[in-house]
Amino acid sequence: MRILGIDPGSNATGYGVIERREGRVVHVAHGVLRLGRADGMERRLAQLHAELLAVIEAHQPDAAVVERAFVGTSARSALVLGQARGVALAAVASRGVSVHELSPREIKKAVVGTGNAEKRQVQFMVARLLELEGRPAADAADALAAAICHVNSAKLRGLDLTRNTSGRRRRARAPSFVVRRAR
Amino acid sequence: MRILGIDPGSNATGYGVIERREGRVVHVAHGVLRLGRADGMERRLAQLHAELLAVIEAHQPDAAVVERAFVGTSARSALVLGQARGVALAAVASRGVSVHELSPREIKKAVVGTGNAEKRQVQFMVARLLELEGRPAADAADALAAAICHVNSAKLRGLDLTRNTSGRRRRARAPSFVVRRAR
Repeated sequence: MRILGIDPGSNATGYGVIERREGRVVHVAHGVLRLGRADGMERRLAQLHAELLAVIEAHQPDAAVVERAFVGTSARSALVLGQARGVALAAVASRGVSVHELSPREIKKAVVGTGNAEKRQVQFMVARLLELEGRPAADAADALAAAICHVNSAKLRGLDLTRNTSGRRRRARAPSFVVRRAR
Repeated sequence: MRILGIDPGSNATGYGVIERREGRVVHVAHGVLRLGRADGMERRLAQLHAELLAVIEAHQPDAAVVERAFVGTSARSALVLGQARGVALAAVASRGVSVHELSPREIKKAVVGTGNAEKRQVQFMVARLLELEGRPAADAADALAAAICHVNSAKLRGLDLTRNTSGRRRRARAPSFVVRRAR
């Protein structure tokens, strides 16, 4: 069971792939796709779409998890974030991979233990849980954290990980356990 | 010279294809791609991406025009609009078609003569200018209007229509002419 976590952003989109192997959570890959400096937003978005397809092709995830978008007060910023997010969602769905949404709070709580953890705490705990050397970049760490949260909450609740839930507005309870480390 | 106009929306995306043929503007095709009721926003976005690629494949435009997004005060609405818009931009750019942006005001002024025209006026004038039977749906009419505006403003200003300008913040002057009808 492979899970792809994605953290779409207007400048950079983090991704992380983990696997549940015999009850353990194992790191597979992670990275940051930067929208780059290609001339014109549309070319940057097309590039993001192509790069995400390449990630999916390379790692063949069974399901994907995306952090629910936090929108502030700026409609202009939300539009730009939405553009990158829409491209990410479309890329994943075009390969038949179901997409789940989790709130930032749920994800932080599952990985760090508190819903208002700082970015650095997430990076630290993700590196520790997945036994990474060095800390992943913040965007990749968020994506890995989302994937970890999804694997474990689904496991505990006996859910089918590949079932699509993002179309629903069900509010998932934050899981209250500690991730088991891969050995 | 074929121009694809696109009017991305959170529920429906209008498109319109026109051609400049011997100084005339000729209608080629138009339609509305509805995000539909597919389960999950990500599948609807993937569907929009695929359908836009099919439109591009069918009509082989030399350039595309997108209305500059109007964002109101709701960041949540802007996010949802951004998702559809990002998918549309990425689809067009992935086929090497350059994307131009025009403001709603410029487009209305070019087609109706006033920057604050109502939707119905745009539908009426687009149908008349392109000699359509019946009025196109509002979203398709907006897309056709954007394409008409682009063809004519570029013609008058001697611009290369296929050159990408959307990455720049240059403010284009509203063209002040009447579209020549195809005969």
